[in-house]
Amino acid sequence: MVLSPRYLLPVAPANRVLEGVSVALRDGRVASLGPHDEVVANHPRADRVTLDRHLLMPGLVNAHGHLAMTLLRGLGEAQALEAWLAETIWPMEARWIDAEFVRDGTRLAVAEMVACGTTTAADMYYFPETAALVCREAGFRLQAAFPLISQPNPYSTGFDDCLTKGLALRDRFRDDDLVTTCFGPHSAYAVGDEHLRKVATLADEVDADVHIHLHETQAEVDDALRTHGGTWIKVLDVLGLLNEKLQAVHMTALTDAEIELVAERGVRVIHCPHSNMKLTSGVCPVTKLLDAGVTVGLGTDGAASNNGLDLFAEARLASLLAKATAADPSLLPAADMVEMATLGGARALGLAHRIGSIEVGKCADLVAVDVDHPSMQPLHDPHAQLVHAAAGARVTHTFVNGRCVYENGTWPTLDIDETRARAAHWGSRLS
Amino acid sequence: MVLSPRYLLPVAPANRVLEGVSVALRDGRVASLGPHDEVVANHPRADRVTLDRHLLMPGLVNAHGHLAMTLLRGLGEAQALEAWLAETIWPMEARWIDAEFVRDGTRLAVAEMVACGTTTAADMYYFPETAALVCREAGFRLQAAFPLISQPNPYSTGFDDCLTKGLALRDRFRDDDLVTTCFGPHSAYAVGDEHLRKVATLADEVDADVHIHLHETQAEVDDALRTHGGTWIKVLDVLGLLNEKLQAVHMTALTDAEIELVAERGVRVIHCPHSNMKLTSGVCPVTKLLDAGVTVGLGTDGAASNNGLDLFAEARLASLLAKATAADPSLLPAADMVEMATLGGARALGLAHRIGSIEVGKCADLVAVDVDHPSMQPLHDPHAQLVHAAAGARVTHTFVNGRCVYENGTWPTLDIDETRARAAHWGSRLS
Repeated sequence: MVLSPRYLLPVAPANRVLEGVSVALRDGRVASLGPHDEVVANHPRADRVTLDRHLLMPGLVNAHGHLAMTLLRGLGEAQALEAWLAETIWPMEARWIDAEFVRDGTRLAVAEMVACGTTTAADMYYFPETAALVCREAGFRLQAAFPLISQPNPYSTGFDDCLTKGLALRDRFRDDDLVTTCFGPHSAYAVGDEHLRKVATLADEVDADVHIHLHETQAEVDDALRTHGGTWIKVLDVLGLLNEKLQAVHMTALTDAEIELVAERGVRVIHCPHSNMKLTSGVCPVTKLLDAGVTVGLGTDGAASNNGLDLFAEARLASLLAKATAADPSLLPAADMVEMATLGGARALGLAHRIGSIEVGKCADLVAVDVDHPSMQPLHDPHAQLVHAAAGARVTHTFVNGRCVYENGTWPTLDIDETRARAAHWGSRLS
Repeated sequence: MVLSPRYLLPVAPANRVLEGVSVALRDGRVASLGPHDEVVANHPRADRVTLDRHLLMPGLVNAHGHLAMTLLRGLGEAQALEAWLAETIWPMEARWIDAEFVRDGTRLAVAEMVACGTTTAADMYYFPETAALVCREAGFRLQAAFPLISQPNPYSTGFDDCLTKGLALRDRFRDDDLVTTCFGPHSAYAVGDEHLRKVATLADEVDADVHIHLHETQAEVDDALRTHGGTWIKVLDVLGLLNEKLQAVHMTALTDAEIELVAERGVRVIHCPHSNMKLTSGVCPVTKLLDAGVTVGLGTDGAASNNGLDLFAEARLASLLAKATAADPSLLPAADMVEMATLGGARALGLAHRIGSIEVGKCADLVAVDVDHPSMQPLHDPHAQLVHAAAGARVTHTFVNGRCVYENGTWPTLDIDETRARAAHWGSRLS
């Protein structure tokens, strides 16, 4: 297949918008990039898709979420994190979570995400095998962080059971083209030191990443100071988890010294501004982290605290939040946000060798955006329009591994009617 | 015509979502509301439009913007207000503004707004007569604040010329069904005391509102303290402008005493969070204003500082900004934001007797939102989904005065190809 868009935004090299450039795809990868005529001549038997009112860019990487929580969106509105978890989310989960819930909720999340340009998501939820199978079937790229929680829950009897199931998941998807796996201890406070130490050892042994909620609120940090005499970052450092394998989500409460330490250790950070603002968790110091050399990706978090999964909207919010917080309009400019939503997320998930930019040899995870729509014209600054207007609504085509998973209101790899019917089913059941 | 939606969100009464209710329209007004069968039986010759996957709500009221500035969107990215105006916007305007620019830019803005559910906009820009004619032709509701600026510009030789043109505009559209007019002094700092006093006298004489940028930044207020020994609010009060006719836009820098004064005087406030965050102007204390009893509407501001005109996105941002700023997740809940984006805006523009809610006798300014889309399901909390997910992207039908102005990617009242072509023309011309 040869895609010939009006504009190509490759992300690498950074801050470039090319015209007259086609992309040839072969075996799910980008086979070549070049002038329209040249690419077409070199691939005479390829199907040509002309996208003459479109900008083609890498698929977005949603670096943190809980996909099946789409089924809970709109519950627990107007609560702060602690109350939202304890009074709304955990009781609902204890009552309703099973493999069917995860299947239906994950499929709904995938339908929503591909429709607004996301091609990869990092998931952290119960029944990760079910989620992984749903994503593989739908042709969607997933990092499944298998949950590690000490408390018994509908998915597992405790930490050891979580670990057994998680390692089996890892084995099953070892060579998968779409699904990667990693350790998903919920948080330092919910797992405990002994189990965290075990995660550190095992992650090192099997060379896997660790995805964790960390320093989500100041209250969480204050708890650590009370119980451990140091912040959770300090605790993780002692336990051997504060290293280049760590994907640390939220990170709103950080001292300058901690930012330096995190940078030194090669920890990757995932910023979820909508969730943090809605649950009043705090503000991640993204600009300082970037200045210190830390890799930062963007996440929507679960739909229950968002209430959608549109990563373009998240990029817009991250940019505005950084500018307003520091009263500096130059912070997180649009081109940087496009990078954070694509290659930054890929780096945060350790997938930058495969996705995040349109480069020869990388996976053909691509998104076409209609830039002829009245909301996108005139296109003086494509990066700014992508970030600051509602570009998620303008996505017309989404490809993962070269396979079309969304096109103009249709979902070629999903039974959308069934997906909708199951969502409505849960809507009545949970209300 | 009878519209039979799955859900009806009337806004008045507040915080209600009705099922099984149809709306009959006659002569551009809401003629009746009631159970589907009853309304259909009472209007046997009406065309029935079944919206069985939709929520029907009042059209959104964008209470502040500069419509033709769509043509400048994406210019002056990453600048603060003062530099953005002085280095980018004013030079561009001085060079390019003419009636053709305003015609093309306004038409583009209308196309964008109706596609995301806005049925009324407050405009403040050069060549307001051209903008009014474009909106009337497109069937879009407009409040045209005619510009009053002391400096010569491509539209006028100075204040008196502005006034002559503005009053002629007011006469021309006196009985118009779609266009209302009011005085639009740019700001206290750009107009000067003598001319402001004249505006106060004339606004009183002709019983017209006054729409003004006020206390947009702390720097603006500091200037007043330096030049006038008091804030602009104090200055306007002395000049006789601080009253129930005043539509005060931005209002980021306010003392508690000023909030009380503004409430006492019946001043209406328009909040533009995206523009304020992007240009780092400050944060309007919306919650305090509402608590003091002040009417607050929402505005996108011009597309050049936004970069879009999606009022649903503005509602989301306003809610998140209020919660995060005060660390209180209960602030500006979703139902309040839906009201602010509709009836609140109508009140801010003095149009609440005609628009802002679905009530018998009011204008049939209505919007249908596809709530069956994966991003809106399950619909546990319709208000939360409208505000916190990207509902602007889910708008399928927009009616103004009962006339369909947008339906599923088509614009029945606009030549959309010509609108696009003109936008592209300005895109090349200005770059």
